[in-house]
Parts: sequence; structure tokens; C-alpha cells
Amino acid sequence: MRAITIGPTFGSKNLKLVERPEPTPRRCEVVVKVLAASLNYRDLRVVAGTYHQDFPHELVPVSDGVGEIVSVGPDVSRVVVGDRVCGVFFQRWVAGQLDPADRAYQLGGPLDGMLSEYVKLDERGVVKAPSHLSDVEAATLPCAGVTAWHALVTEGNLKAGDSVLVLGTGGVSLFALQFAVAAGAQVIVASSSDEKLVRARAIGAAGAINYVRTPEWGEDVMRLTGGRGVDHVVELGGPSSFAQSLMSVRPGGQIALIGYLGGMEGSINPFEIFRRQARVRSTPVGSRASHEAMCRSMEINGIRPIIDRSFAWTEAAAALDYMSEGKHFGKITLTFS
Amino acid sequence: MRAITIGPTFGSKNLKLVERPEPTPRRCEVVVKVLAASLNYRDLRVVAGTYHQDFPHELVPVSDGVGEIVSVGPDVSRVVVGDRVCGVFFQRWVAGQLDPADRAYQLGGPLDGMLSEYVKLDERGVVKAPSHLSDVEAATLPCAGVTAWHALVTEGNLKAGDSVLVLGTGGVSLFALQFAVAAGAQVIVASSSDEKLVRARAIGAAGAINYVRTPEWGEDVMRLTGGRGVDHVVELGGPSSFAQSLMSVRPGGQIALIGYLGGMEGSINPFEIFRRQARVRSTPVGSRASHEAMCRSMEINGIRPIIDRSFAWTEAAAALDYMSEGKHFGKITLTFS
Amino acid sequence: MRAITIGPTFGSKNLKLVERPEPTPRRCEVVVKVLAASLNYRDLRVVAGTYHQDFPHELVPVSDGVGEIVSVGPDVSRVVVGDRVCGVFFQRWVAGQLDPADRAYQLGGPLDGMLSEYVKLDERGVVKAPSHLSDVEAATLPCAGVTAWHALVTEGNLKAGDSVLVLGTGGVSLFALQFAVAAGAQVIVASSSDEKLVRARAIGAAGAINYVRTPEWGEDVMRLTGGRGVDHVVELGGPSSFAQSLMSVRPGGQIALIGYLGGMEGSINPFEIFRRQARVRSTPVGSRASHEAMCRSMEINGIRPIIDRSFAWTEAAAALDYMSEGKHFGKITLTFS
Amino acid sequence: MRAITIGPTFGSKNLKLVERPEPTPRRCEVVVKVLAASLNYRDLRVVAGTYHQDFPHELVPVSDGVGEIVSVGPDVSRVVVGDRVCGVFFQRWVAGQLDPADRAYQLGGPLDGMLSEYVKLDERGVVKAPSHLSDVEAATLPCAGVTAWHALVTEGNLKAGDSVLVLGTGGVSLFALQFAVAAGAQVIVASSSDEKLVRARAIGAAGAINYVRTPEWGEDVMRLTGGRGVDHVVELGGPSSFAQSLMSVRPGGQIALIGYLGGMEGSINPFEIFRRQARVRSTPVGSRASHEAMCRSMEINGIRPIIDRSFAWTEAAAALDYMSEGKHFGKITLTFS
Repeated sequence: MRAITIGPTFGSKNLKLVERPEPTPRRCEVVVKVLAASLNYRDLRVVAGTYHQDFPHELVPVSDGVGEIVSVGPDVSRVVVGDRVCGVFFQRWVAGQLDPADRAYQLGGPLDGMLSEYVKLDERGVVKAPSHLSDVEAATLPCAGVTAWHALVTEGNLKAGDSVLVLGTGGVSLFALQFAVAAGAQVIVASSSDEKLVRARAIGAAGAINYVRTPEWGEDVMRLTGGRGVDHVVELGGPSSFAQSLMSVRPGGQIALIGYLGGMEGSINPFEIFRRQARVRSTPVGSRASHEAMCRSMEINGIRPIIDRSFAWTEAAAALDYMSEGKHFGKITLTFS
Repeated sequence: MRAITIGPTFGSKNLKLVERPEPTPRRCEVVVKVLAASLNYRDLRVVAGTYHQDFPHELVPVSDGVGEIVSVGPDVSRVVVGDRVCGVFFQRWVAGQLDPADRAYQLGGPLDGMLSEYVKLDERGVVKAPSHLSDVEAATLPCAGVTAWHALVTEGNLKAGDSVLVLGTGGVSLFALQFAVAAGAQVIVASSSDEKLVRARAIGAAGAINYVRTPEWGEDVMRLTGGRGVDHVVELGGPSSFAQSLMSVRPGGQIALIGYLGGMEGSINPFEIFRRQARVRSTPVGSRASHEAMCRSMEINGIRPIIDRSFAWTEAAAALDYMSEGKHFGKITLTFS
Repeated sequence: MRAITIGPTFGSKNLKLVERPEPTPRRCEVVVKVLAASLNYRDLRVVAGTYHQDFPHELVPVSDGVGEIVSVGPDVSRVVVGDRVCGVFFQRWVAGQLDPADRAYQLGGPLDGMLSEYVKLDERGVVKAPSHLSDVEAATLPCAGVTAWHALVTEGNLKAGDSVLVLGTGGVSLFALQFAVAAGAQVIVASSSDEKLVRARAIGAAGAINYVRTPEWGEDVMRLTGGRGVDHVVELGGPSSFAQSLMSVRPGGQIALIGYLGGMEGSINPFEIFRRQARVRSTPVGSRASHEAMCRSMEINGIRPIIDRSFAWTEAAAALDYMSEGKHFGKITLTFS
Repeated sequence: MRAITIGPTFGSKNLKLVERPEPTPRRCEVVVKVLAASLNYRDLRVVAGTYHQDFPHELVPVSDGVGEIVSVGPDVSRVVVGDRVCGVFFQRWVAGQLDPADRAYQLGGPLDGMLSEYVKLDERGVVKAPSHLSDVEAATLPCAGVTAWHALVTEGNLKAGDSVLVLGTGGVSLFALQFAVAAGAQVIVASSSDEKLVRARAIGAAGAINYVRTPEWGEDVMRLTGGRGVDHVVELGGPSSFAQSLMSVRPGGQIALIGYLGGMEGSINPFEIFRRQARVRSTPVGSRASHEAMCRSMEINGIRPIIDRSFAWTEAAAALDYMSEGKHFGKITLTFS
């Protein structure tokens, strides 16, 4: 079978199409024929060699994908041949908090990811894909979808009537917007692009802020919430936007630190967290239980991921380059047929 | 001013229209000119003298209503004259669990209720009415609405994608249906009337069960949930339906015991709770914090209470008699102008 | 190696000492040389053939035990050879709620249990034993200890200052007593034996009730709690004691249904749950996360399980017969050396 | 009656002993004859005029105290004359989250505090003092005690076996130490004084760190917890210690931002919160429900506040000056007889 690897030299132009033996499932393992994959910023950094962890060389990158189970090893009871499944981002994180001992079991580095015709996964590390989704749609869920769900619902206890500020319009942000709207929340989206804000409104955003035009956008959020502040901030900007996020949240409100698309540099006085009485929390992606609960909500509420564009999986380098331009709105996906 | 009282002889025909002095607000009190009220089964029992608590004679019955603040006493800071407010069912239950010491502070008995042109309430015992609701709509919230919200959301942590079984189509049941649908949940309604089930579907129920036609309706619930069982049961039937509710809930699922419309008689083997691994919970109505959160969700999601019919408040006896016939679908309300 | 099996004929006299091949660890598996085991009522019923589930014939019974890892298969990362570990009762229940798909992965039936010189377990189904405990002490934790911890702490959110009613003085009850005392709670123990109550007091019980002498012992609990009622009931009696448990709990308090030592027969009117505003919950044993958290508390608080008596593992039949007499106080254990 | 006020000129030397009319209780009010009071850093700043809020001039400062109810107004039902009660710091915060509308109802500014022979409080703003405590002991609870309890128990869900890092040995820190030890947790205390660390150990601290001697004391915490990190940090240092607190906490662990004894200046890169996967939370003092639960734990576990020294209340200026020297260990209290 064919797979694409990265390392020991990095950058999308150093991705290599290689031949590997087709995997055979051992105890509790399943072999999945990959149908589609999708890209996250994490993959961009892994391929660029700038991710904040070191991974094995000749890694098969890309964490997110969906496929069909084509064979199962001994002792498999959760799934059967023919099931269409996504891999769980943290292969061993079943529920509750992530056990530090299980931290390294991440798809797309350190574990081999989905840029491969066949992948071998533990049966406990797969979740059935929602039946109403196409392959490329289902492929977008494991990292981006679960991150949004785990932060807002599992950890954030989002309830109908809550207000949510979503920063940016990347993959996690759009899932957060869709999940929050389906849950009966009021969502404000902040973006640097008026055009993307128009699209966010079409998906259900009740408020829209161009954070380039109003650098003190925390005041906009206060105004849009009648002076109350939002219950939840889905913070993807990182250090550069954190100060305004703190200005946007109500006393007792939550800020979920998820990404750092604005870079890793910046500083705040932590006394501001004290003064604003915020709850600031960072959780990596999410558990299998979050993944499964998210799928149930997507099915019941007919939620479909926003897809920007699809590439053939063998053109992953072009897809990553396209992602790095930052012009997309929705997920960039890879097809395998 | 005029008010209607009940006791020491009971029954709707013994309701008396009486003249009482107009109230004057003391420290932390507000006087509310009542605009509308609404009826609950609790009121029916209070007026009939069959409620499971004894109340003062010459009680002003009816817990739920809305009005406009016409005067405020010293030290009032939460509201101002002109605000349109609902009374909070438990006047002193602010948040968290109900303090047993505050249990007696219930409107409509032991405290005087809303069948009165003016009522005097502590400023901490009122909540602003959602602005998109008419007076009769807003009047339905304090007992029926808050009970549904507190059980499903505050105590039940309802999340998008959950499944909910709602028993009956009374006031609490219809609110539970509306709140759950707005929260992105999947709702199954059980009723004895096919016609009411059609109306429940129109409000958003995804499944409908006629429990008269299928006495073993727990099996229907299992079938409708693909063998999974529901995450939540809003149990209003009481002892007579509890056994089937237990058959309907998934392991680890919740049953909120709210009413006993099917009577107070019946028995189960509590071993069945053990065997089904259910969580069974009873909470009375809900807190002011629940009331406020419910209002936010109603505003954001444009939820309007289902109204069956309105009577003039001076015809409360006729309204109660109409309620006891059990043919209504939605709330029975009383107008004051 | 030698093992003891039960079935297809049941009863302790039909336990058979058999020779089986020594296990070889496959992917993610470890082989454990068993050092000690301990008995639960569940084992008594499994061996008697009266448990409320059917299990495979020639089952190796007994869920609880501790041993040393002697070999590991491929891909094992959580433990190493030489670690002293307990098996997790539900082999696949990592955290959160038990996934119904993982329900059958119980040690001591349907999965083979600990009456065996060597056992083979998934590395995700073992937990390091607290270092301050002897082998027989550590062997008592997986079912009895974890059940008490999961019910009171994980599900019950027990906090310092809470009051706890523990029914009986069996294995789960004594763990519940010890865990609650170490957590700063006030514990009342109910037993049929004055002698056992004296011993329960010595372990830290602040109150003691002989439920044979006072059949309406709910009143005693009310008196001992100054009319408040307890925050938690650890209910092991089953249907026969449930009515008094309901009389003992404060409004909003919790009843954890764990066992049915008084038999499975009995009935209540579920309206009583409504009237008492109780939270009644049943959870089976507990997760690995509960097991691990329990071990940390035992280490930090120097908690040692109460041991009644030890038998050689080859005398398991005698040990089970001794258990069925019900005279023990503390765990009955089996040694393997 | 006599009272002590501050403002419009500030500093302890501008405290004035004044004569005021004895208060008369109105609806829902009680009058309390003050028996003892105690000091917090907040009082020091209020009197110095450097608190980060403006308060009314001629304010009666000092939030914490205990007294006996000597008269009650109409409609009082929670307490009776003769009850010994503490004032609740936030007079209107009953339970759950603090309603921003109730934020200004703080004793000791903006509301008059306890430096007064008699104080008038709403009956909903008092809690019975634990009976085993002396007056000066009971006087220390409302701000310092409740802050520690609310942060660790109500918000932090502290459980037996958890590890807790407490920064400093001020009032909140010592309560946190005592409450955590009684709850079966393992506590590490960090202080600049070896002598204070010896005393912290005597109260139950399992680990002690001199943060002056080891500026990178996060490493010490890691070493003392076997590389795991603590579950909870009670962070009183403020911006200057926050970076090391982040190094001390386990992934998923909690940092409760409570004080800023090291000053309000400093900065961190919020990316560190992301990288450490911490939960950072700031909550002001706590609710009445927290106050009551704390009292139950103190009674059941026989916890007595650590008292450094008592002054006559008329020597409040000397007591505040003594506090500002920072040599005390335990609470500084004021007596009224």
C-alpha cells in the first residue's frame, strides 16, 4: 500500500510517497481502508517541523480521517468489518480527563496518521461516523470537531441561552459556531475578514465583529451582550487576543484556550484574570466520549461540516500549501478514491 | 383592591372575591400590579383542598403570574418601577439547592399568590419577563416553565444530541418539549391522545407514543432510540408510569420525578432502579437562577409558551373547572384588564 | 499452571482445581502472577449459580486480586515487569460513564477471574497497588473498595462535613466508612449486630444504629443528624431497607443503591422519592479512574482494608462457605504462596 | 452606640471613633451585638484607601465578625434572638454564582462592616457560628475562611487524596491548609519563612518549600509529588508567583487565583496556561451556602482557626498597623467586651 511520510527533513515539499506493507490486525486491532482525510493547523506545523513536540521521523502525518473497517483482529467486539469509522485523535482517551500516561497516543504524530491507504487502529480508538455525512465531511471530525465540542459542551457545559464568543473562522471556530447554534446558544464571531463574517452569519452567528477594524473589540462584545459579557469564549488567537477575550467575558464566564493562530508571543498581567473573575481553561482536543456525543448531536441536528475544498490525498503537499495561505473558509479535505 | 381567596371551605365554587387594602412596599419589597396569571395542577389541588400540604385559610391561590412594578420600598436595587416581572415560585430560592428553611416561601400557598390586583413581593423574588412575550405568555413561566428547565437543564445538564422522553402534554411537559428541542435534543412524547401527539409533533417532537394503546411503551422507546434508551425522562405520570419509565431509560440515564398526574398510588421494586442503573431525582420547581437562565434561552430561541385559552381573572373558578376536565393543550391563563 | 473453575454444575462443592496452560501476553497484554485474591458476595452468587446474569461455564471465578507482572506483550507502555497491580473490575471502563458495549468485560464472570496462578489482562485494565498495603490488603480493592469510592466520591461528590449513612458492615460498607471518615465526613453505621457496631465505632463511625432493635431506624438517623437527615446513604440492604433509607436522607440528599443483601424482594411507592426529594442512583462498581483516585487517598491517608481472615486459594470453597455464614467483619482473602 | 469609621481621609491614623444611633431592625432584618471581629488584608487596603474599588466615606470598615442577635424585625424566620451569628461577606450571595447585581452588598465596604457595637443585617445575610468556637475564633470565618472553602471545595471539588499547594501562611492560606488536611488531601505549603513552615507542618502540611531559597520552586513541587504536579494551587501571591504556580500544577489541575500579596504587577505569556493545560479560576470570597458547609466541616472535624493575637476593637488602628508588619501567623482579632 502507499503512504505519505515526513522527516527527517521537513516542509511540505519533503513529503514522500512511500510503499509500506499492508497492515495486519493484531489483538483488539482493526484495519481501516481510508476514505478521506482532512487537515488541521497542527498538521501544517508537524509537516513544517515547527510543532512544539518532536515526533518520529518518517511519520505518516495528518490526524483526521475516516475509513471503512476491512479486517479485525482477535478480541474485537466494539465494531465489525464494514463499519465506517473515524480514528479518535487521542487513541487511548476514553472519557474523563486525559491520563498523562496516554498522552503520546496521538494520531498524526507521535503515532502514524491518516495519509495512508490503510491504517491500523485499536478498536477502542475508533468511533462510527455519522451516517448522514459524506466521507470528506466525516473526515473533518476527530481533531477540529471534537476540540470544539469538548471545550464548549463536555468541559464548558454549554446550555441553551448561553452566549458564546468564537474567535476566527478556522476549522475549530466553525464547528464551535455550528455546535453552539444547534444547542440554542447565541454566538458572536470575530474575524479579520468582513466576507468571512458574512458567511459566519449565514451559518447562524447572531453577532459579528471585525477585530482588525476595532482593536478594542472587547467593548463591542460588551455592547452586543447588553453589558453582560459572554458566558464562553472559544479562544483561538492566543496571547495576542487574550487581553480582549478577558474584557469580553462575564464574571464567572469561561475562556477555553484552544489555539494560538495569532502566534505564541504576548503577555498579560494575570491579575486581570483575578479582576475579571474569569475561568480560563485549556484542554487538548477531547475524549472518545466527547467524539461520540458530538456525533449524536450532529445526527439529531443535521449538522454538516463546512468544507472549503478537496484535494486528492496524493496532493497533500498542495493542500497544505493552500492551507498556509489562510484564505479558506471551512475544512480542507483529501479524498482517497 | 380586589383579590380571590379560598378556605376554610374548599372547591372552586368556594372561591371568594374579596376586597383587601392595597399593599404598601416595605424594605426590599416591590408592589406589582398583576397583568396576567396562569394555572397549574397544583392550584387545582390547593383550591380543592387536596394538596399534600396544609395552607392558611383565606389564602390567595395561584402561584404563577406577571405584573408591572408600581412602587418600591426602601433598599430596592434589583428592579425599578415600570419593570414587568414574574414572581419566583420559591420566593427565597436564589440558586443551588433549596434551603429547607426557605421551603415555606411558596407563592400560591403558604404565601398569597397572584389572584389579586396587586401583590407585594421581595425584590429578590422577582425576575424580569422576557420582552418578546405577551402578558399571558409570561404569566405561565414561574411554576410550569421553571420546573421543566430546572429538571432538564439545571439538574439534568441537558446537552445537544441527548434524547428526552416527556410524559404527557400538560404545562410542564410542553415546556420540557420546547426547551429540549431548542437545546438540540431529540424528544419523544407519550400521551393518551393521538390528537395531542400530532400537536406535539408540530412543536418538534421527533417521536410520539400513545401509552394507552401500548401499555408496554418502554419497548417503543427502546425501539425509537435504536435500543439505546433515552438519556432523560421527564416523569409526570407518577407511580403508575414509573415502571415503564425505568424500562425506557439508558443505563446511567436520568429520571426527573416531577408530577403524579396518574395518581399517587402504585409500587415498584426498587431493585429495578438498581438493575437499570438509573438516576432518579426529584426536585421541586426550581431556583431564581433557573428562572433567569430559562428566560435567556426563551429570548434567544424565540420560544413562546403554548396557550390553550384565557379567562378573565374573576372567572378563576370556571378556569379551574375547565382545567379539571383535562381537555386543554397548553396553559390556561387569566387576564386582569 | 493451576486454576479453579465453576460450572456447568454450581455450588462451592463443584469448584474444580484444573490445570491450564500458562498464558502468553499478546499486544497490550500483561501476565500477572497472582499474589492474593479476595471474595465478594457477587462471587458467592456466581459460584452458587444464582447471580442475575449467566456466565460461561468453566469460568474462573473471583473478581478481586493482586499480583506481580511477570511478562508483557508488544505495545505495553503503562506498566513494566515487576509492578504489583490489581485488576480493574470492569476491564475497559477507563473513566466517565460505563459504555454499555464494554459491560461484559468484568473479571470473575463473564471474563475469567483471579482464582488462577497466572492471569492475562490488558495493560489498560490494571492499576498499581498502593505500596503501603500487604498483598491480601491490596487484593480487596477492585470490587468492594472501588464500589464504595465511586458511589461516594466520584458520583457522590462527598465533601468534608457531609453526613453519610452506611448500611451494614460488609466489605463495601467498611470501605465506605473508612473513605468517608478520611474525607472528613460524619458517618452513621446501621447493623444488626451490636458487636459489629462497636467495631464500626472503633474505625471512626460517629453514630451507630441497630436496625433490628429499631425497625423505624430512619427516625434514629433524623435524631442523630439534628433533624437534618444525611447527605448520603450507602444502600446495601436493597428493597427491604429502602423505605427507611428514604426517611433518613435530607431533601436533595443522595441514595447510592449498591447492593441487596436483604434480598431482591420488596416494594415502595415511588411517590415517596418525589415527596422526600431524594436523588437515587445506582452505578455498578466503578471506573479505573475511580480505582486510581481511591488508591491515592488510601496512600495519603494511610487507609488499610479491614481483613477478617485469610485462606489458601486452593481452599476457596471453604472460604466461600465461611462467607455465606455472614459472621465475618472485614474482607475474606485468599493467599497464593 | 460607638462605631469606628474611615474616610474621607485615609490611613489607620484617620480611623475615628464615632457615636451613632443604635440600629432598629426593619422587615427581614436582625440587629447583632458584635462580640468579636477579625482583620483581612482587604481591610488594610480599605483603611489605607488603596483598595481597587471606591467606597463611601465614613465607612465602618472590617468585613468579618460575629455577634449575638438582640432584636429581629418583621418577617424574620431563619434566626431568633440569642443566636450567635457571623455576617455573610456578600450579604446577598446565597448559592451558585454571584449575581453581578448583588456585587455591591459586601460588608466592610461598600456596606458598613463590623467595627461597631451593633450592626444591622438582613436575616438572609447571617450564618450561625459553629458552637465549638470562641467568639474571636468564629469572627475569622466570613472572608478568610469562606474564601478558602469556596475555592477548594465548592469550586474546586477537593476530594480525599488530592494534592494541594498553598502559597503563603496568611489567613486564607492557613484555612486552606486546615480544610484540605481535614478533607484527606496532601498539602504542600510555600512560605518565605522557615519558622512559619515549621508551624505549617505542625498543622498538617506534608511538604514545605521556602520560595525565597528556591526561586524555581515549581521544581520542588514536582519533586514532592513524584513528578505528577499538584491537583490544586491556592494562589495568593499574584502575578509574581503565577509562573511558578503554573509549573507546579498537573495537566488538568486547578489554580484558584485568590490574592496578590506579592503585588499586582507582573506578566505571563498566556500560552503557558495552554501548554500546561491548567484550569485557572478566580472567584471572590464565596456564597452563604459555602459558609454554611464550611461550618459543618469545622464542627465535624473540630477545626479551630489559628489566632495570632487579639486587640480591643477600639485599638483597631494598632491592630491594622501590626498586620501591616506581616509578622503574624494566624488571624488578628478584635474583642468587644
